Amino acid sequence: MFLTNARIATMTAPSGYGMINDGAIVIEGDRIVWVGVLADVPSDHETQDATDLGGRLVTPALIDCHTHLVFGGNRAGEFEQRLEGVSYEEIARSGGGIVSTVRATQQASPDALFCDALTRVDAMIAEGVSTIEVKSGYGLDRDTELKMLRVARRIADARPVTVCTSFLGAHAVPPEFAGNADGYIDQVCIPTLQAAHAEGLVDAVDGFCEGIAFDTDQIARVFDAARALGLPVKLHAEQLSNIGGTQLAARYGALSADHVEYANAADARAMGQAGSVAVLLPGAFYTLHETQMPPVAAFRKAGVPMAIATDCNPGSSPLASPLLALNMACTLFRLTPAEALAGLTRTAAQALGLSDQGQIAPSMRADLAVWNVTEPAELAYRIGFNPLHSRIFGGTL
Amino acid sequence: MFLTNARIATMTAPSGYGMINDGAIVIEGDRIVWVGVLADVPSDHETQDATDLGGRLVTPALIDCHTHLVFGGNRAGEFEQRLEGVSYEEIARSGGGIVSTVRATQQASPDALFCDALTRVDAMIAEGVSTIEVKSGYGLDRDTELKMLRVARRIADARPVTVCTSFLGAHAVPPEFAGNADGYIDQVCIPTLQAAHAEGLVDAVDGFCEGIAFDTDQIARVFDAARALGLPVKLHAEQLSNIGGTQLAARYGALSADHVEYANAADARAMGQAGSVAVLLPGAFYTLHETQMPPVAAFRKAGVPMAIATDCNPGSSPLASPLLALNMACTLFRLTPAEALAGLTRTAAQALGLSDQGQIAPSMRADLAVWNVTEPAELAYRIGFNPLHSRIFGGTL
Ligand SMILES: [Zn+2]
Ligand SMILES: [Zn+2]
Repeated sequence: MFLTNARIATMTAPSGYGMINDGAIVIEGDRIVWVGVLADVPSDHETQDATDLGGRLVTPALIDCHTHLVFGGNRAGEFEQRLEGVSYEEIARSGGGIVSTVRATQQASPDALFCDALTRVDAMIAEGVSTIEVKSGYGLDRDTELKMLRVARRIADARPVTVCTSFLGAHAVPPEFAGNADGYIDQVCIPTLQAAHAEGLVDAVDGFCEGIAFDTDQIARVFDAARALGLPVKLHAEQLSNIGGTQLAARYGALSADHVEYANAADARAMGQAGSVAVLLPGAFYTLHETQMPPVAAFRKAGVPMAIATDCNPGSSPLASPLLALNMACTLFRLTPAEALAGLTRTAAQALGLSDQGQIAPSMRADLAVWNVTEPAELAYRIGFNPLHSRIFGGTL
Repeated sequence: MFLTNARIATMTAPSGYGMINDGAIVIEGDRIVWVGVLADVPSDHETQDATDLGGRLVTPALIDCHTHLVFGGNRAGEFEQRLEGVSYEEIARSGGGIVSTVRATQQASPDALFCDALTRVDAMIAEGVSTIEVKSGYGLDRDTELKMLRVARRIADARPVTVCTSFLGAHAVPPEFAGNADGYIDQVCIPTLQAAHAEGLVDAVDGFCEGIAFDTDQIARVFDAARALGLPVKLHAEQLSNIGGTQLAARYGALSADHVEYANAADARAMGQAGSVAVLLPGAFYTLHETQMPPVAAFRKAGVPMAIATDCNPGSSPLASPLLALNMACTLFRLTPAEALAGLTRTAAQALGLSDQGQIAPSMRADLAVWNVTEPAELAYRIGFNPLHSRIFGGTL
């Protein structure tokens, strides 16, 4: 494949877009083999049939590096109740909240979970997404956690998309272990992780480190189990308070620490030294009416790469649009459009440990998005508008 | 057309959804002739071929009652500059802000304006919109204002959508009248209104009443001219401060007062007595990082119907998604999902003076949206996800 007449945001530079005007891209198989100014195309590539992109913008295909998009049911009823004045306590007492999603996910058949998840996957593909991370964590029992991860793997068979799975057994304490989070970690979470890994279902191990979930000691045990299996780790940390999750994640060399609104400058330095990515999730910030901004300046100063993701989930972020996450990252967190686009391409790949995605450069996967815009800032500027022209996945249109 | 097996949110009741389960709708020509429970369908309608909607939700098609979607250029560059730390003053000095849109709109050919606007119209149609209000106001000279309104009228010829035009000559003071807003109103705005009306281009007359735009005396002169032509009025009022625009609008029996974040309880009572709709525009609130909430409780108390719109415009609300405006109205302004859906259907029709749209009832226009959801709250709950199944416009699928 030989693409010409493109404005290419290569996203290879440490800052900015790495723009190439009058650009061309040569693809062989599923790989990019050459990218540059059309005038410089090596002569052995010139003979190919060219696809003229009409001056359109080409970016790496988008990567959503933090989602919970496999789940049963939805929480629209609860959303409505809250706005009608029903208190959180009443909703919880009547079985609402994450417990209702856990129950619906336990009860759903694998096929029902799969079909429902595909509606969200298809919405993302329509916005130029090539790679989606999907977490377990609404099972909280062995069978349902495995069911969720198998459904996540099936998505990559059914759609032209790469799926990275994260085991998130340490998402919440299930009712049957109320008051005994340690028991849940040791008796259910870690054995289920081992079983899921044995089945080849786990690409990384995640946890929710928060007062309402698990403390650093409990997460550390999960991370030790991950390390014993040779699996990378990541963590939901410092979303609602600072209890040391970011520092823990850094000590384990985590791929990323996610949310991190309450992280401080010392946390940012620890992440910078560990090479961990800060995954910012503005959809949850928006939905939960949060006011504590993530320490963006400290991340910049400490050289912590920032990624952006939808956090697509039925409770705190029923968001299926990476482009809207891009706008929210700029509007709510004041990232520059270039930082935000890197956060959905190059640094999102880094957050998933994928070294051959998220940039337009030789030897990278040929996962590309072609847009009906000329300037990359337009992708972040518009709200609720999808200017995707076409998507190339593994060298195939 | 005979639609069966639908869950119908008729939106006819003063509150709630007016739900009909196991519902059916009979359409003749472009009108709804019967709606109710399938078991009650009059026998003369039963013979028709039925379209089984599979239990899906049917609502009135959506109505976006406040947009500026005809404009030249875009302001992505300015969006990016601001996030990179360039001050508003520097941007204004280098020709940014509304002035840049006015210049781009003046320079654009009618065809270019038209094609660009269609991308936004098509995004709205894809979300189930049947009716769109479009304002002038980026011309600020006679020729460009007329050009914008002609383009708005062309949209309804090119797409299956109803377009209502508003003349918004009193949008901003153009540079050539700097310091002489009165001169602009008397020498340009009002004569242009009269010319546009003579050409049949004006359905309503709008203005921007704000410290940075026009005061109540200036708007009153525009409204007097509208009244002389027999045209209804509406007003951008109390968005950034309270200078009496809402009370003025109420005195003129305005269709609506729009934005109204800074309106107070007395303003709400005046609107209630005048029968004016409060049009809430959460996209601008979000983009501008506003914190002053519209007085929703006062509107409820005074019986002021609330509508929701995108305010689609290149500066303060580059939002082309009515569904996202629905979510934002709930998330940011705490409307209930039922209030917000009424705001995009029944009360949006009222804000446009359209008595035969926005409800599913006999004699109403057969403008319907069919959704891949079962509960209407799901439309407001999801973010950046479009569950439209199909759209019926004037009785045609
Ligand atoms: Zn999450
Ligand atoms: Zn407006």
